[in-house]
Amino acid sequence: MKIGVAKESAAGEKRVALTPDAVKKLSGKGFEIQIEEGAGLAAHFTDENYHAAGAVIVEHKTALSAGIVVRVRKPDLEEVKALANDSIHISLTETCGDDEVLSAMRKKNVTILSMERIPRISRAQSMDALSSQSNIAGYRAVIDAAAHYGRFLPLMMTSAGSAKPARVVILGVGVAGLQAIATARRLGADVYAYDIRPETKEQIESLGAKAIVLDVGESGSGEGGYAKELSDEAKARQQAALADELSKAHVIITTAMIPCRPAPTLITEAVVERMREGSVIVDLAAATGGNCPLTEADKVVTKHGVILIGHTNYPSMMPSDSSAFYAGNITNLLNIMVDTTDGELVLKNLDEDEITEAMQVRAES
Amino acid sequence: MKIGVAKESAAGEKRVALTPDAVKKLSGKGFEIQIEEGAGLAAHFTDENYHAAGAVIVEHKTALSAGIVVRVRKPDLEEVKALANDSIHISLTETCGDDEVLSAMRKKNVTILSMERIPRISRAQSMDALSSQSNIAGYRAVIDAAAHYGRFLPLMMTSAGSAKPARVVILGVGVAGLQAIATARRLGADVYAYDIRPETKEQIESLGAKAIVLDVGESGSGEGGYAKELSDEAKARQQAALADELSKAHVIITTAMIPCRPAPTLITEAVVERMREGSVIVDLAAATGGNCPLTEADKVVTKHGVILIGHTNYPSMMPSDSSAFYAGNITNLLNIMVDTTDGELVLKNLDEDEITEAMQVRAES
Repeated sequence: MKIGVAKESAAGEKRVALTPDAVKKLSGKGFEIQIEEGAGLAAHFTDENYHAAGAVIVEHKTALSAGIVVRVRKPDLEEVKALANDSIHISLTETCGDDEVLSAMRKKNVTILSMERIPRISRAQSMDALSSQSNIAGYRAVIDAAAHYGRFLPLMMTSAGSAKPARVVILGVGVAGLQAIATARRLGADVYAYDIRPETKEQIESLGAKAIVLDVGESGSGEGGYAKELSDEAKARQQAALADELSKAHVIITTAMIPCRPAPTLITEAVVERMREGSVIVDLAAATGGNCPLTEADKVVTKHGVILIGHTNYPSMMPSDSSAFYAGNITNLLNIMVDTTDGELVLKNLDEDEITEAMQVRAES
Repeated sequence: MKIGVAKESAAGEKRVALTPDAVKKLSGKGFEIQIEEGAGLAAHFTDENYHAAGAVIVEHKTALSAGIVVRVRKPDLEEVKALANDSIHISLTETCGDDEVLSAMRKKNVTILSMERIPRISRAQSMDALSSQSNIAGYRAVIDAAAHYGRFLPLMMTSAGSAKPARVVILGVGVAGLQAIATARRLGADVYAYDIRPETKEQIESLGAKAIVLDVGESGSGEGGYAKELSDEAKARQQAALADELSKAHVIITTAMIPCRPAPTLITEAVVERMREGSVIVDLAAATGGNCPLTEADKVVTKHGVILIGHTNYPSMMPSDSSAFYAGNITNLLNIMVDTTDGELVLKNLDEDEITEAMQVRAES
């Protein structure tokens, strides 16, 4: 059973779907891995590393024409032409509804397994790419904030004077927010965090941060542990109640996203105006409109003296580990997709497992 | 007594010699502060902040023509023309011997006080700008390393797999090295450190790092707590003994500088070749040739798969706090330069205080 790993073609994407370590594990199980020349270079994995792990180095089109293709991002229309009819394609699909790439794939009867659709059940936790990548985004966002902030995050006492710890506020306490709290705490910042799901309070406090508790009149707890959208009235109440807390912040890492919906506005322009000069906002929701309307996707801009960072792909900025964790997710997924019969790998019926059933992007969806 | 603060003119320099807080203290003591319009903007201090603290906002030339001019960097030749005859100029002078700027200043009988020449005595500790700025460089260098390293620095255990803590080696355990150790430890890295001065072992261990102990046949402890240059034989022994330790490192922060001498080579090209792809070297000695011959000053380059970072002005990358600490040094210095007689500030004889005596850059030096 051949697995093809093509180099990512999306602009600026440095990740690769399998690392040499993952190749070694999958080869050991009986898969044949065909990886495109240079596919791992941007993530610091060389062709020699892959070859030594048991992969065959191939051209772009050969990698795409395998029976199973694994990828970080979805292919472009040109790449779909190289996919084999009736093959399986595993990647993030980056869409809620449908689009022309997915339609083109479906016309070739490609089974599209979307890494975003892995159900939030405990058996699938080790395959949850959204979590593995969000964890990296949360860490990397704090490093970026520290790099753009003109001051220390920790308390600094020296003979020339002292600096107070930075006041860092984390908005949205999902996987990214939790890792951002942990990283800002490691760096010695004074950390506050807010989430519309009241059950996060304990998690916030267990990481040594202070929970910001607001009464917005309704709960934002949605299905599967995700946040749900608030009513307009509750949103307005939330913005007003947050304003004072946020205007005191020196660094804000904001991570509030709602699946398939624009990100909620949590930081208004009026709040940005009130923040101290040189403060930093890292808006992890920049790709879906941002939690601050002043954020510009994939740019660093300064407005009202505040530095707004809108990078939309932090995992790609830490490509070795983001690839390693993604490859771990893919490997765990591939493991439940096959059986070994008489020493041969046999593909299971993907409709019969709750996980691979849920992952399929079908025409009617 | 007027103090002029001109905006820095050196390329990329974001610091400012006085902050609004420092202005407030000095105004309270009786100094009149004249600061150039926009002098603090790059460090996130506005003219309004300075005005509110008691400063008068003036033009470039007016700031330079005050009786005492305080600056981060030394002036350029054009700026020297604006200095008043017989005035006092306080700044880093960035030279060991003499140069045409200092000569031009001396022709106008300007008293040149060099912040690098503050003696290493305990009474002068609060004025020690080399220490205050090195402390910032050590912290910021680790943040930069974390931003360029494609992996986590801390141990990371997740359902998708785990990542070991990064192996970070700090070379040179002065002020910058100690802060680099502390910051890398905060971020959860596995930290090793080396210095030619054997007395640093205890300091290294007190910060939770492991001391690399090598026998190079002689001690590198020099005057005033600084390192001295080793003999050629000892240098060769040091390079060889360090090679194995360094080639295992994922991140190296190297800070070994010898006053007024080229930086010693600690990381040879052969070591860089042995390091893992994607490893990071931050060479804080880049301005004086680097501790690694592959470093390029003020550039980030990748050689043999290793990312070499050669920024020469990390304090300027954290301009609010570096300015605040530098301004603290300047304020403490100004305090010992004056007496108050009948409510009036009177300049003391600068030759009569050990500190201001040592700081003067005289023609014969």
